[in-house]
Amino acid sequence: MSKPRPIQLLPIFHIPEIRPGDDLPRILVAAAKKSKIAFRQNDILVLAQKIISKSENRLIDLTTITPSQRAIDLAAASDTDRRKDPRVVEVILRQSRRIVRDHPVLIVETHHGFVCANAGVDQSNIPRENIVSLLPQNPDASAKKIAQALRKLTRKKIAVIISDTFGRPWRLGLTNIAIGSYGVPPLRDLRGTHDQHGKPLHATIIATADELASAASLAMPKSAATPAVLIRNFIYQPSTAPATTIIRPPNLDLFR
Amino acid sequence: MSKPRPIQLLPIFHIPEIRPGDDLPRILVAAAKKSKIAFRQNDILVLAQKIISKSENRLIDLTTITPSQRAIDLAAASDTDRRKDPRVVEVILRQSRRIVRDHPVLIVETHHGFVCANAGVDQSNIPRENIVSLLPQNPDASAKKIAQALRKLTRKKIAVIISDTFGRPWRLGLTNIAIGSYGVPPLRDLRGTHDQHGKPLHATIIATADELASAASLAMPKSAATPAVLIRNFIYQPSTAPATTIIRPPNLDLFR
Repeated sequence: MSKPRPIQLLPIFHIPEIRPGDDLPRILVAAAKKSKIAFRQNDILVLAQKIISKSENRLIDLTTITPSQRAIDLAAASDTDRRKDPRVVEVILRQSRRIVRDHPVLIVETHHGFVCANAGVDQSNIPRENIVSLLPQNPDASAKKIAQALRKLTRKKIAVIISDTFGRPWRLGLTNIAIGSYGVPPLRDLRGTHDQHGKPLHATIIATADELASAASLAMPKSAATPAVLIRNFIYQPSTAPATTIIRPPNLDLFR
Repeated sequence: MSKPRPIQLLPIFHIPEIRPGDDLPRILVAAAKKSKIAFRQNDILVLAQKIISKSENRLIDLTTITPSQRAIDLAAASDTDRRKDPRVVEVILRQSRRIVRDHPVLIVETHHGFVCANAGVDQSNIPRENIVSLLPQNPDASAKKIAQALRKLTRKKIAVIISDTFGRPWRLGLTNIAIGSYGVPPLRDLRGTHDQHGKPLHATIIATADELASAASLAMPKSAATPAVLIRNFIYQPSTAPATTIIRPPNLDLFR
């Protein structure tokens, strides 16, 4: 067996502020070139959700939002030291299928099925006041579209993961996870395989796309303008399974 | 600002089967040398929990275990297609402070405070029959001890993370997380910082040690004998905070 090359995490610099309608694949290729990175076959490009949302105009002007009574009540019940804007709560409710917990943080199930705080509605890293960003409507479709455009532009098969930072029960801190993907297997099923002593590995399904997103996060400090990281030399079987397959079906979820 | 070097994930090969009492730091240094890896200042070494548990003799011979009535009842209630061994359940109960869910999987709070399936009691990757491994008694202390020994052996300051694969509510698949650490900050608090538009970043605490563990997992396929991965060129502020600080305090946990 030849020794595999070390996996590398390559941040792509020189990505300008993304605006609605921007041709993101073309911008990414130009930024990679400026960063002296040439795409290679089977590279995995991890993109922070925010630039996808901006390019897809998933932005809401809060001055156009009239909060419902429910949003006003939920905002009034939020902690006084960081009282929520009822208009933001209204946007969160519109992005949600169901509220999972409403105090002290608003944890919801989004229309995609993600369980997360505030439905991914976010005010950070947006240049204008009174604007919030939403998650992409269909992050898997966005990943596929970008991967296909990159293939045309670079003649290379490049997998794409769209990532966001989500909180977790039981453990503090956010970690980067995959909300959309194209090209990499979201889950790696090791159940058919054996451990090094020949015993079958039970219940060992690894959330590979989430681990790839977490790895990219190490090269993607939030405060810097590096919303894209290339992962090189990770060996995988190409897959078109969407990242939504990582969402635990509600009937198998003991904690919602 | 000078361009940072890409983060690299370097698997350490040539690690032999670890036995109780083995001098793990010395074995790791020898294996790294055989893998043609020279440790550098501020490298982060991620070690799979199993080799720590083996070296610390955290192994239980099931033939010495008499299950309690509670263990017998819990085993009898487990799924028929993968009925649990009452002796294994007994070991799990002894490692646990509290059962969080008992069906269809046994999710417990360990004496350390980790919430996980089966208290980390595991039968895979152990060469002998009827032996199960437990989590290290104090993974942070284990990480510190290994880091200090590596410092003496290599004259380099090397951070250590002890990792294990845990499941999660809401999302399928396991991801690698940090159950012990020494030298790296378990959590990175970005709340004092600002986003690229100068707006303060709210509620942005990143579980860096967990993300490092997940990254290492990409170079650590379970079925191969690569329980150690070196992470190079990740920039961090040295920290002696233990990985147990990532455990969400029960009074702040909405889901246990």
